[in-house]
Amino acid sequence: MALLVKKFGGSSVATPEKIFHLVDRVLAEKHEGDQIVIVVSAMGDTTDDLVTLAGRVSRHMPKREMDMLLATGEQVSIALLAAAFQERGQKAVSLTGPQAGIRTNDHHTKAGIVEVKADRVLAELEKGNIVVVAGFQGLDDEGDVTTLGRGGSDTTAVAVAAGTHADMCEIYTDVDGVYTADPRIVPGARKLQEITFGEMLELARLGAGVMQPRAVEYGEHAGVDIHVRSTFHEVEGTIIRREYTLQGEKEYVVRGVTSDVNVAKIAVRGVDDKPGVAFRIFDALAKVNVDVDMIVQSGSAVPNKNDMVFTCQKADMADAVAVLETLKAEMGFTRIDLEANVAKVSVVGAGMLGSPGIAAGMFGALASKQINLIVVSTSEISISCLIPRDQVEEAVNAVHDYFFPRTDK
Amino acid sequence: MALLVKKFGGSSVATPEKIFHLVDRVLAEKHEGDQIVIVVSAMGDTTDDLVTLAGRVSRHMPKREMDMLLATGEQVSIALLAAAFQERGQKAVSLTGPQAGIRTNDHHTKAGIVEVKADRVLAELEKGNIVVVAGFQGLDDEGDVTTLGRGGSDTTAVAVAAGTHADMCEIYTDVDGVYTADPRIVPGARKLQEITFGEMLELARLGAGVMQPRAVEYGEHAGVDIHVRSTFHEVEGTIIRREYTLQGEKEYVVRGVTSDVNVAKIAVRGVDDKPGVAFRIFDALAKVNVDVDMIVQSGSAVPNKNDMVFTCQKADMADAVAVLETLKAEMGFTRIDLEANVAKVSVVGAGMLGSPGIAAGMFGALASKQINLIVVSTSEISISCLIPRDQVEEAVNAVHDYFFPRTDK
Repeated sequence: MALLVKKFGGSSVATPEKIFHLVDRVLAEKHEGDQIVIVVSAMGDTTDDLVTLAGRVSRHMPKREMDMLLATGEQVSIALLAAAFQERGQKAVSLTGPQAGIRTNDHHTKAGIVEVKADRVLAELEKGNIVVVAGFQGLDDEGDVTTLGRGGSDTTAVAVAAGTHADMCEIYTDVDGVYTADPRIVPGARKLQEITFGEMLELARLGAGVMQPRAVEYGEHAGVDIHVRSTFHEVEGTIIRREYTLQGEKEYVVRGVTSDVNVAKIAVRGVDDKPGVAFRIFDALAKVNVDVDMIVQSGSAVPNKNDMVFTCQKADMADAVAVLETLKAEMGFTRIDLEANVAKVSVVGAGMLGSPGIAAGMFGALASKQINLIVVSTSEISISCLIPRDQVEEAVNAVHDYFFPRTDK
Repeated sequence: MALLVKKFGGSSVATPEKIFHLVDRVLAEKHEGDQIVIVVSAMGDTTDDLVTLAGRVSRHMPKREMDMLLATGEQVSIALLAAAFQERGQKAVSLTGPQAGIRTNDHHTKAGIVEVKADRVLAELEKGNIVVVAGFQGLDDEGDVTTLGRGGSDTTAVAVAAGTHADMCEIYTDVDGVYTADPRIVPGARKLQEITFGEMLELARLGAGVMQPRAVEYGEHAGVDIHVRSTFHEVEGTIIRREYTLQGEKEYVVRGVTSDVNVAKIAVRGVDDKPGVAFRIFDALAKVNVDVDMIVQSGSAVPNKNDMVFTCQKADMADAVAVLETLKAEMGFTRIDLEANVAKVSVVGAGMLGSPGIAAGMFGALASKQINLIVVSTSEISISCLIPRDQVEEAVNAVHDYFFPRTDK
């Protein structure tokens, strides 16, 4: 007997046939006495269709009206899904985000959840209903509908789980769970049974996008265990929680290996070696919304000069160079060097800080394949190396093989 | 300077082009300082499409979920319409029925409005907005979305006009206004400048369906003047109000001539002539929802027996006969006679009771065309005659010619 919140994406409710498939699965997995909340997105391409329709009326659709429009997508899903449960003889009731007590700030189209007033959801569960909640939407203090932005339904599910003190929040996705590496790149990648919130966030930041980071943060904050599992079959996925509960999970300090080819390296050569210089450069970059990642400053052969090296998303490279050019004369750089044929390989693990030899192990694995390190940076729970882009697959496999030795050899 | 509530149907917002046509017309007709509320239905065939979608999930869609589903239709319209006003530089804001304070009972799919809390609408008007309200929907005491049933947007418009103490509620329709007869049957029919609520309701009851009767009743109750006018051009339509304000409107006691071919006559022969017999017959009919219209009991040639004659909608005829057959043995009727080739012609006018000769004039007009009267019944503001169906057009024209003599002759 448990209170479970289950989130399904739009492809799971794209047609009446898929809706009944979902309903039958939920009912088959339901144990006597279980209380179930379903959080669901808009059917199939509905949201995209509504955005297109909006574009025919206004190229700059007012955000409040965009939210009013988009919120209809989930409202259609929940009505049909609740009706489908009833068609199968199961009591069910649909609730919009506002009805489910999802209270947000007023940042239309990307609102943040500030509170969940779960009274209505709990009351409907007590009546024996499966409660079907519209993901992605909430209500602001003005009484207006808001939406949470891309991936917002994940956040709705975690927030509802927190508000109802659910035993588990299950996120059904098109992957089986969280893997030690992308199985498309590393054939020997293993599915993790458990992972901590911090590791999950670091993996997401470093390019392994299984779940919306905001939803993970919400789960960490509220202490909601999140089970990431497959829409297609019933095997267990990966549980994201604060601490491991399984002994086997503690065996490996490194929990995942990621790669990101969507990065560029920028080097500002001949910067004056004096206080305040770094601030001026990165402040200027921040003002044009360039998201700077790895930053390295390591001295220069020229006296009183420095080289400032950093990485950013490839899409931001042009903006970054443009803003640096405006500073060039004023700050007296000698040169701005760009490198786009690079990739970032990272290892993540919460126990890394207390385990010597992780960095050495990673460098050794890369060296064994003659892979050159361009930039290295470390955080509390990760180590990242910038390497030549054409060696990225080889690098990820070498690092993965080192930290997760193949048992079949 | 006035506060105006304008209601547009779904065909007026069926495409982005039509939405802008509506917006441009409203802005062109708006005087400096006018405050405007627009009530709007779902775009084009949206409601029918949603009903079809529901049918693919459930043949007996739960009514609460049907309302949840259907309410999305108007929500799409209001978001786009408010955005279109803003695109033209006019401040505007959309409000769902619940947001506009439309409170209803919980009779899902045909809820009745119990109250309008117009604070939000008035506050948005004060901010200089055109307020775009979703018709057809409201909120019950549970906090659930309800819909008002067919034609519900008319009722929303009148209710919002009442709640905001608007100067006028304008209903834009595909007809020019209320005519003295259906112009397709009577070429010389004239548009009325004014009509009373009671006359309008009687016309609707007798087959002239310009507006939803519930909306007219609401207007009468709340004292809201309703202007029925054309979507297609700007000429004045007909104003429905409590009392005439124009001298010319008082000239004719009869205000309209209607016909209804959708009726059947049923005669129950040889009913015992004793108290309680009529009650048993009509109580049994009411229990199977047969809406009985004209009732005539006029004695029989057989002593202590009576004939009971009434009319009902043709669609109800089979149900009526079935229930009467169950009573036949018990109550000892001799026969049940049906007549389906009949039509009802009526004249309506609030001043009729104090104007002798109206009935005689109508009978004379029909007699002049050799039209036989099968059944006659009268109300305070109408006289109806059942006649042979094949003479209905001739009858309507003869009666109209008598009460509204052609001035061009």
